[in-house]
Amino acid sequence: MELGALDRDRGNAIVAAADEVLAGLTGRYSDQFPVDIFQAGAGTSSNMNINEVLANRGLELMGRSRGDYDFLSPNDHVNMAQSTNDTFPTASCIAVIFAADRLLDVLSSLSNAFQEKEREFSRVSKSGRTHLMDAVPVTLGDEFGAYAAALSRASHRIQERRNDLLELPLGGTATGTGANTNPGYRELAILKLSELCNLPLRKADNSFETLQSRAQLSAFSGALKEVAIELIRIANDLRLLNAGPTTGISEIGLPSVQPGSSMMPGKYNPVMAECLDMIGFQIIGNDTAVTLAAQAGQLELNVMTPVITSNILESIDLLTSYLPIFQKRCVEGIQAHEERCKAYLEFNPILATFLTPKIGYLKAAEIANESLDRRLPVKDIAIVKGILSKEEADKLLKTEKLLKKN
Amino acid sequence: MELGALDRDRGNAIVAAADEVLAGLTGRYSDQFPVDIFQAGAGTSSNMNINEVLANRGLELMGRSRGDYDFLSPNDHVNMAQSTNDTFPTASCIAVIFAADRLLDVLSSLSNAFQEKEREFSRVSKSGRTHLMDAVPVTLGDEFGAYAAALSRASHRIQERRNDLLELPLGGTATGTGANTNPGYRELAILKLSELCNLPLRKADNSFETLQSRAQLSAFSGALKEVAIELIRIANDLRLLNAGPTTGISEIGLPSVQPGSSMMPGKYNPVMAECLDMIGFQIIGNDTAVTLAAQAGQLELNVMTPVITSNILESIDLLTSYLPIFQKRCVEGIQAHEERCKAYLEFNPILATFLTPKIGYLKAAEIANESLDRRLPVKDIAIVKGILSKEEADKLLKTEKLLKKN
Amino acid sequence: MELGALDRDRGNAIVAAADEVLAGLTGRYSDQFPVDIFQAGAGTSSNMNINEVLANRGLELMGRSRGDYDFLSPNDHVNMAQSTNDTFPTASCIAVIFAADRLLDVLSSLSNAFQEKEREFSRVSKSGRTHLMDAVPVTLGDEFGAYAAALSRASHRIQERRNDLLELPLGGTATGTGANTNPGYRELAILKLSELCNLPLRKADNSFETLQSRAQLSAFSGALKEVAIELIRIANDLRLLNAGPTTGISEIGLPSVQPGSSMMPGKYNPVMAECLDMIGFQIIGNDTAVTLAAQAGQLELNVMTPVITSNILESIDLLTSYLPIFQKRCVEGIQAHEERCKAYLEFNPILATFLTPKIGYLKAAEIANESLDRRLPVKDIAIVKGILSKEEADKLLKTEKLLKKN
Amino acid sequence: MELGALDRDRGNAIVAAADEVLAGLTGRYSDQFPVDIFQAGAGTSSNMNINEVLANRGLELMGRSRGDYDFLSPNDHVNMAQSTNDTFPTASCIAVIFAADRLLDVLSSLSNAFQEKEREFSRVSKSGRTHLMDAVPVTLGDEFGAYAAALSRASHRIQERRNDLLELPLGGTATGTGANTNPGYRELAILKLSELCNLPLRKADNSFETLQSRAQLSAFSGALKEVAIELIRIANDLRLLNAGPTTGISEIGLPSVQPGSSMMPGKYNPVMAECLDMIGFQIIGNDTAVTLAAQAGQLELNVMTPVITSNILESIDLLTSYLPIFQKRCVEGIQAHEERCKAYLEFNPILATFLTPKIGYLKAAEIANESLDRRLPVKDIAIVKGILSKEEADKLLKTEKLLKKN
Repeated sequence: MELGALDRDRGNAIVAAADEVLAGLTGRYSDQFPVDIFQAGAGTSSNMNINEVLANRGLELMGRSRGDYDFLSPNDHVNMAQSTNDTFPTASCIAVIFAADRLLDVLSSLSNAFQEKEREFSRVSKSGRTHLMDAVPVTLGDEFGAYAAALSRASHRIQERRNDLLELPLGGTATGTGANTNPGYRELAILKLSELCNLPLRKADNSFETLQSRAQLSAFSGALKEVAIELIRIANDLRLLNAGPTTGISEIGLPSVQPGSSMMPGKYNPVMAECLDMIGFQIIGNDTAVTLAAQAGQLELNVMTPVITSNILESIDLLTSYLPIFQKRCVEGIQAHEERCKAYLEFNPILATFLTPKIGYLKAAEIANESLDRRLPVKDIAIVKGILSKEEADKLLKTEKLLKKN
Repeated sequence: MELGALDRDRGNAIVAAADEVLAGLTGRYSDQFPVDIFQAGAGTSSNMNINEVLANRGLELMGRSRGDYDFLSPNDHVNMAQSTNDTFPTASCIAVIFAADRLLDVLSSLSNAFQEKEREFSRVSKSGRTHLMDAVPVTLGDEFGAYAAALSRASHRIQERRNDLLELPLGGTATGTGANTNPGYRELAILKLSELCNLPLRKADNSFETLQSRAQLSAFSGALKEVAIELIRIANDLRLLNAGPTTGISEIGLPSVQPGSSMMPGKYNPVMAECLDMIGFQIIGNDTAVTLAAQAGQLELNVMTPVITSNILESIDLLTSYLPIFQKRCVEGIQAHEERCKAYLEFNPILATFLTPKIGYLKAAEIANESLDRRLPVKDIAIVKGILSKEEADKLLKTEKLLKKN
Repeated sequence: MELGALDRDRGNAIVAAADEVLAGLTGRYSDQFPVDIFQAGAGTSSNMNINEVLANRGLELMGRSRGDYDFLSPNDHVNMAQSTNDTFPTASCIAVIFAADRLLDVLSSLSNAFQEKEREFSRVSKSGRTHLMDAVPVTLGDEFGAYAAALSRASHRIQERRNDLLELPLGGTATGTGANTNPGYRELAILKLSELCNLPLRKADNSFETLQSRAQLSAFSGALKEVAIELIRIANDLRLLNAGPTTGISEIGLPSVQPGSSMMPGKYNPVMAECLDMIGFQIIGNDTAVTLAAQAGQLELNVMTPVITSNILESIDLLTSYLPIFQKRCVEGIQAHEERCKAYLEFNPILATFLTPKIGYLKAAEIANESLDRRLPVKDIAIVKGILSKEEADKLLKTEKLLKKN
Repeated sequence: MELGALDRDRGNAIVAAADEVLAGLTGRYSDQFPVDIFQAGAGTSSNMNINEVLANRGLELMGRSRGDYDFLSPNDHVNMAQSTNDTFPTASCIAVIFAADRLLDVLSSLSNAFQEKEREFSRVSKSGRTHLMDAVPVTLGDEFGAYAAALSRASHRIQERRNDLLELPLGGTATGTGANTNPGYRELAILKLSELCNLPLRKADNSFETLQSRAQLSAFSGALKEVAIELIRIANDLRLLNAGPTTGISEIGLPSVQPGSSMMPGKYNPVMAECLDMIGFQIIGNDTAVTLAAQAGQLELNVMTPVITSNILESIDLLTSYLPIFQKRCVEGIQAHEERCKAYLEFNPILATFLTPKIGYLKAAEIANESLDRRLPVKDIAIVKGILSKEEADKLLKTEKLLKKN
């Protein structure tokens, strides 16, 4: 309308119809968008669906009958110079940006919850484990702080890939040339959209590339894959540290959520972490689907956008739905089993590492082995064998020394 | 009941409740199974959900109030010696078998549709293309016959992996030992299930392995991946052969399904084949999720079964829902563009291949190049250059010769 | 020669050259095959490489100079009616079959080694663990027997996919029609090859399909993926059961292979199992490459065969090289830590499961919880609380009862 | 030495040995590093390998005999407070950064080559194709410019992930605490390394996270996957545009590199693009291996680093080796087939799109269909039917109008 390409009457009717639809998407209009995700390539079916709904409602608002397309046409008046090829990926980018922002909030909150645990557990010293084997000590807080840090980094990568999506193909129309658009359309359309979305959207540097390539979206999906990798890893660590209660590590206790077995009484399983694992696997699988779709672009267009966008949105939705529950019902309630941590640490033969600067690797290895064989602390062995005096041993092996962070 | 472990009154109430639930799953009872796929590891939530629904309905049927678990307990009377660990994978195997049988029907039908086209197009001779470049001829029927053959093979692999699932973990209970089961339970339970399902189910050779490992299901998913690979390849071939109508190969015409563009009039896209591509990508992605879940088994159990089963069932559902539509609205209506095929073939320089037994590779290459440069058929060049007499050329290059199948 | 298409002199020279090359592949001729795996699509470079080497050596044997292709041509006399398109996949199938047979031997040996451990550990009773949490008991032998069973199944799937490869595209030449072959060539060529390879090779049911589709090879790769999934799972179990020595489960001891740390004395890591994990990950990655290549076939040919075959052969080579070492230096030397197993089992609260048939799930849960809180065996709690007499407890909870396999 | 932890004599001997090894890695010392990529988790074997080589050569330089570890120990004097856990990922990061910089150069050069083609082909107008079907026009230059843009973006993502790797775990030693390091060691070690590498390296914000998580490397691998996706897509476009020469699109000609067939004379295949496809598939497969390895971290360490680093380096090496060849022997020599482009465009029925602002979508569709049926240009139909005057038609459908870029 602003560019004079559409008369005000029709234009206003379409705008009014659009406002109604937006307001009624979960109600009155919800049954008017029956198109499945697995549809025509490029999303043409979805695009024409909205064009047709708006034309018909617009006609009604103008006192005409539905289907009177000579008067108000889904193509000529609603769609006009838009093409599915530029609008569908534009809509995809914006949908993903909004979803990403929700995800970033959720990840930030989860990272904070781990940081809170870092503080809470900062004085719980425990055996480190590398290769799942006894190693030099850390605090339980160190472990949880690292989870927080890992999520922050993963969020940072999400943020970068989210920002790329601010650059929109809109206005390139069918093949990138902007065929059939009025001068000034592209800039104005993106400006309006920026205002509506409250986002600093911008037009494509190269509008051909943004139709040809779905790399911006697939790279976003790749960033989701990295989040999933970290979440799987963290979930597995929690399951490992919680394992037991009698026959596993059991340095922490995850909150009990539900009886763990239909058959075995008194069993509580780390169900929240297991669920997170499964979500992580699904997200990595979804990224594979996106990868295949992204490499399948041909010439002026990648027509596989529907399966790309839907997988990304599903992955985000899984996370934004579940992570707050995981945070509340799992992370925030984690208890440290300090005594168990302490007991493990005391008998950890690898504390002999701290003797190596004094006695060398090979002699320290002997002490480690003897500690293990005799089930005595390294410290006791070192004193008994006359390698260290009591004072030296206390000094070399005091907890602060073991855990100092350079 | 048959083994004397449960009294008839309670047993019959549970059976009656189960029959009601089965009958009402899409109606009355549909809201009593709210558990999401992303749930407790192993599927405990789903297992207890059904146990609880049956206990409560059983109580009602016995004139008791819901929740009177002292009288009829979800654990002690409904679940009894079952474990989620043996029942959930058992249910998964059976669900996948039933779904697989529907899929095999659908694939068989699609393969037949391609075979029908093989017959229909058996006399449409055309240029072969290898590396997307002109090659020695085939018939259009040969191409479609190969699609039929590819789907038959893929079905064969599905069938093999489906048959593996007849072997059930049921009766192994929580860790494979069959703890808490009565003698004869495993055999009887599987016999009953076989009768109910009309399937030759059998008990696990090694019940520990069937709890530890989800390999049977993940291998089934792998077979689905192979189907997807073939379907993607075939969909892409159809899109390529249909490309045009003026600026592509256009040797075939796919049925028009819907206007292809909101902006470009007269455009028809190969939407059915594109949709199939997207489904194929999703299935391969789902297999990645299954792979990750299958490798994550630990000790006595792989707790990731829910995400494994749900991905397999989703992949099958996508195919069984869509392939019949694809068959009807795409494959069955494919038209051969015989003239186009013929025109391409006539000027194909690679027909010079048939001269090599007579004149050798290098001289034949010269003729091929000259054919291309002068845009004249190989046959004409060969005659003009005096390499072949008209009679020889007719004989060497007649269509039957070009297409003979040894 | 047998079909009269090539004179004996040239034919015999080519055969003699081929025998020389076969004999000298690791010596004299090893530098004459410089072609990389990443080469022309379809493997044309490799095919012409061998054709040229044979032509030149054949010329020398006939007293001619190298390059005298008018006399003995790589195309007209060596290649003749072969096409890269039928020979390269034929060679790929045969190479994979031979490699698969080596792999099946190696897997069978590894499965036997686990079975040996099953026998050795058949009386080591221990806590089962599901969800990594205490569960009803198994024997250590049960666990190892399940590993053996899992590998047998995985081998069975490999065997099936290996057998599919006996069906060869040879004789289809460039596009499946057998263009330029003499009558009888296909059958004779496959017969000769069968004799040379001592394999029941057969010609393709549909020669077009075997050029179009690399499904037989990609399905083989899929079966390798399943082996990898099982090996990763088993390696992770071994790492978990070995974890410690003081701060983990430590129910078994893997043989020490090398000092585990450059810095921490006395540390031994489960390096053999870790290496197996990494090999497993690589094989799954290789399968992804194969999947992408297999879906990329177009029209008469899938030109991506080189990357498919090389990934499969690399995956097999990793396994056949490493698994015997893994068997010898890891599996065969595994020690059971019987006392640790016994100690864990004694205090496992989930033994309360065996009381449920008598006292119900909820009361058993109370006992489990009390066992855990008071760090006393379930048996003692049950007796102290007067739930079971000493005799009943002994009977209900004797090891044979706990481990009975129905 | 600078921190006083090692005497100058031993220190200098180690430095001298290290310089010798660096100088002789491809010669004298090349046989002293036999350790395979598939080795102990974490890379301990490689780390001890270098420690031992340096100790032994250091001993020789000091006039001692090899193996006199009491005098100069691989652990106590060469390794000292290093741990494989911090040094191996540090070395991995630096190796990947150097390789990434070579890759960025190569990608920039390839992008420039496409840009050069953009300029060269900027006036070659042609039919656009979306869904592989006739669409509104573009120039051939537009297509190549988009390839350049796609590679620039992909490079940008590589650059971001490369920069993340400047943050090093070095100094965290075995579990992140910096156990056994002297005060100031971490900062000094990273400073020295920065100078040697001429890179702005920095110490980890959270040293626990950098041992636990290989996310920085797996995210780098993810960026490589995105490059591969774009390269596959571009290679496929080139193959499609080059298809023919008589039976395909053939709008461009890729340089002939080698005869394309052992059997079909005169055949030239797009081998360089096919090879690029195969490399792309391998890189995506390698990323899958990395993904699996990255999610497998446990507690203080991800021991799967060797398979992560080796896959990344292999992927980069494939690209840096091949892309310059691809650029020179494929991209730079691409010819436009202008006449073919022109001929396709003239008869493209979708030019009717430019009539829609005047006559509406439905009438324009009729013209498109008539153009197709009668094999006449849209322009002629529009004039003949009296819809446009000759002048209007010339104006509406002149090339500049068709290709205008808003």
